[in-house]
Amino acid sequence: MAIQKPSIPKGTRDFSPAEMMRRTYIFETIKGVFRTYGFAPLETPAMENLTTLLGKYGDEGDKLLFKILNSGDYAAGLDDEQVRTASKICEKGLRYDLTVPFARYIVQHQGEIVLPFKRYQIQPVWRADRPQKGRYREFYQCDVDVIGSRSLLNEVELIEIVERVFGKLGINVTLKMNNRKILYGIAEAIGHADKMMDITVAIDKLEKIGIDNVRAELSERGLEQEAIDRLQPILELSGSNSEKLNKLRDVISCSETGLKGIAEMEEIFGYAEALGLGLPIELDLSLARGLNYYTGAIFEVKAMDYDIGSICGGGRYDDLTGIFGMPDTSGVGISFGADRIYDVMTGLNLFPEEVDFSTKVLFVNLGEQERMAAMRIMRTLRDRGVATEIYPEAAKMKKQMEYANRRSIPYVVIIGSNELEHGEATVKNMRTGEQCSAAFDTICDMLA
Amino acid sequence: MAIQKPSIPKGTRDFSPAEMMRRTYIFETIKGVFRTYGFAPLETPAMENLTTLLGKYGDEGDKLLFKILNSGDYAAGLDDEQVRTASKICEKGLRYDLTVPFARYIVQHQGEIVLPFKRYQIQPVWRADRPQKGRYREFYQCDVDVIGSRSLLNEVELIEIVERVFGKLGINVTLKMNNRKILYGIAEAIGHADKMMDITVAIDKLEKIGIDNVRAELSERGLEQEAIDRLQPILELSGSNSEKLNKLRDVISCSETGLKGIAEMEEIFGYAEALGLGLPIELDLSLARGLNYYTGAIFEVKAMDYDIGSICGGGRYDDLTGIFGMPDTSGVGISFGADRIYDVMTGLNLFPEEVDFSTKVLFVNLGEQERMAAMRIMRTLRDRGVATEIYPEAAKMKKQMEYANRRSIPYVVIIGSNELEHGEATVKNMRTGEQCSAAFDTICDMLA
Repeated sequence: MAIQKPSIPKGTRDFSPAEMMRRTYIFETIKGVFRTYGFAPLETPAMENLTTLLGKYGDEGDKLLFKILNSGDYAAGLDDEQVRTASKICEKGLRYDLTVPFARYIVQHQGEIVLPFKRYQIQPVWRADRPQKGRYREFYQCDVDVIGSRSLLNEVELIEIVERVFGKLGINVTLKMNNRKILYGIAEAIGHADKMMDITVAIDKLEKIGIDNVRAELSERGLEQEAIDRLQPILELSGSNSEKLNKLRDVISCSETGLKGIAEMEEIFGYAEALGLGLPIELDLSLARGLNYYTGAIFEVKAMDYDIGSICGGGRYDDLTGIFGMPDTSGVGISFGADRIYDVMTGLNLFPEEVDFSTKVLFVNLGEQERMAAMRIMRTLRDRGVATEIYPEAAKMKKQMEYANRRSIPYVVIIGSNELEHGEATVKNMRTGEQCSAAFDTICDMLA
Repeated sequence: MAIQKPSIPKGTRDFSPAEMMRRTYIFETIKGVFRTYGFAPLETPAMENLTTLLGKYGDEGDKLLFKILNSGDYAAGLDDEQVRTASKICEKGLRYDLTVPFARYIVQHQGEIVLPFKRYQIQPVWRADRPQKGRYREFYQCDVDVIGSRSLLNEVELIEIVERVFGKLGINVTLKMNNRKILYGIAEAIGHADKMMDITVAIDKLEKIGIDNVRAELSERGLEQEAIDRLQPILELSGSNSEKLNKLRDVISCSETGLKGIAEMEEIFGYAEALGLGLPIELDLSLARGLNYYTGAIFEVKAMDYDIGSICGGGRYDDLTGIFGMPDTSGVGISFGADRIYDVMTGLNLFPEEVDFSTKVLFVNLGEQERMAAMRIMRTLRDRGVATEIYPEAAKMKKQMEYANRRSIPYVVIIGSNELEHGEATVKNMRTGEQCSAAFDTICDMLA
């Protein structure tokens, strides 16, 4: 066999121990918060039947599915077209997101599930996208959803989760919120219910291109002058969230859906205030992520001190499971962008120090007797949960210290023949270079 | 779009919240132990290049690889044979185990890695095996290895890890150990170095078919009577590990490799004794897992109180990375069988109670004022890490209590108008049915 220079498929990544420890810190922090809100973990298989996946992400999405070749003798007498469309040779694909498998799970297991069903799911997804900076073919999604309840308390709890997660991670964020019913109400109020998307896209450009250009764009998108004039107060909307909602109410009072959206946001903001949340929440009418999918509140989280776009987002959807024949199941959920959160935390140097070493104490290995003494102390340290190792060979001291340095191990314990005789070890702090003597039976208290 | 009855590919599984909480408990326990021994996490992509995977698992293994169809226009003018062999339409496959990706990682990143390199890796693998009871097409492997050190301290630490993991999980186990060098020594000593595998297979049947039948089988496998006679002491081997090793030494004293194997085991057993390990360790010459691969110590862990085969195993290998052009890198590792451990723990009812609920406290939702009081207390409970939820709708009490029961939530807190007035809640223990009153500001201390 010829020797291969090994590599991995483009758009995929190895996560080294240093990266994994940081990623694990992010995931564990997020999971810990999810759990205190009563969300339970769920996992679905990497492979789903193509019948489950196809047609759920649009034509473009279908093309981006990774398809898995059937095993066995799958190619008896196929023509090029059949191979090309993969219809006869592939029945399975890798999941493209966690939402469709979640919907599939709920419908498949509807007999066993207790509603409301609160789940979180942290697993990789795969997309045959062209790889580029920050865009991978394999990446983790981190979703939390509650399904089977229309109560706005769910939205409020998701806001609390956002507050707690980013509080724990130390990232300053703003939560931007919108409501699809308000967007519809605006469009309806100016007589263009069909142009909701055009209007939202135009509003989205307000900050970038200014009011006059937005008006011009709206005109290009087919709105007559009168309709644009009626939009003017919305384009000029400012003030606190409740001021914005009040002004909005004047403009869209004729839209029942719009008023319902306003009432929803007032209730949500009301809870946030009554609970004394510290998270800044801003009503942002330009927010429209996944518009065709969401039916109520829409969330998006931005890091304040780092320019990277949205690091978390989601919303309320009223028909997640309809695609699988189970209608009228409302849910709401958000998704945390682990890769971007990682970049923010790395960029702002927010990872706690202890995330950056996997071993806290290295025992130098200086021979048989010395080693045995070390291993006995190590057992006690490990009983107390301290990550400890011994250099496996009785190598030169310099080599062992170098190993501790390269592994970023903060403490080294040296037991040589002299130390052995006196029942004392030398403990060295690798950051400061300080060292001291410690009796064998005090080392654990010192380092645990 | 026609409505689909959703399902998942055969051989794959959804893990419900109840299963996930148990699985998470197992994985977290194992990881916690790995970490105290200085092992750091690693993850590799689900997809590897087929050039990395093919030829590493034998012809049978190659057939069991899940291959991923290239994206794009992959089938211009291919003939049936090319499609059948998938040589032109697939360049990537799903990983079949964690060992080959680990070897690939080490070789690819050899410039950055510090040796000895201690890593653990817990990720799913995929095999296009025929699904059957206990055999899945997607399952997790849970590997821990140290590479780049020949020291037997590594073997000793793996034994300590086995002891700690199963101690924490509450599973009574025996560790069976063997050494490939001893097996070779035995074959060499009776003049049949080429028949090591035949001899090991025959010894393996000793318990099942008895000494006479084993002798007959050895004869069938081409051993002359004299060689079989020389094996007799080994077939009758009994006593403590050191007694066995002493008798073995007499038989295989002419084999340098065999004596080296005996010395290795004596050193390993010596450490285990000196450290006072409580784990029963048994030298078992019939143990031969992955024989072509291992070069020294071989490990296998059996549950004592549950009949399920091996739940953990591994060994020393001297040429893991040779397949990728990096020779002479010795390593040793073990792998924990999460699915089987799950079955043992379920069968013996070993999961701690708190693994079986995701929410500890449900607050009943009885209206706006009551809800607000509840949510304020919940914030404090959550600050203290208690998994808490409120029923999102102000539904009938019976429905809310039923929800708590079906979710196995152990405590329910009721704040009705009466309770609200007195600043006291009713706290109900759902297991015992007992309930008591508690002032709002004492609930946290009671339930945290």
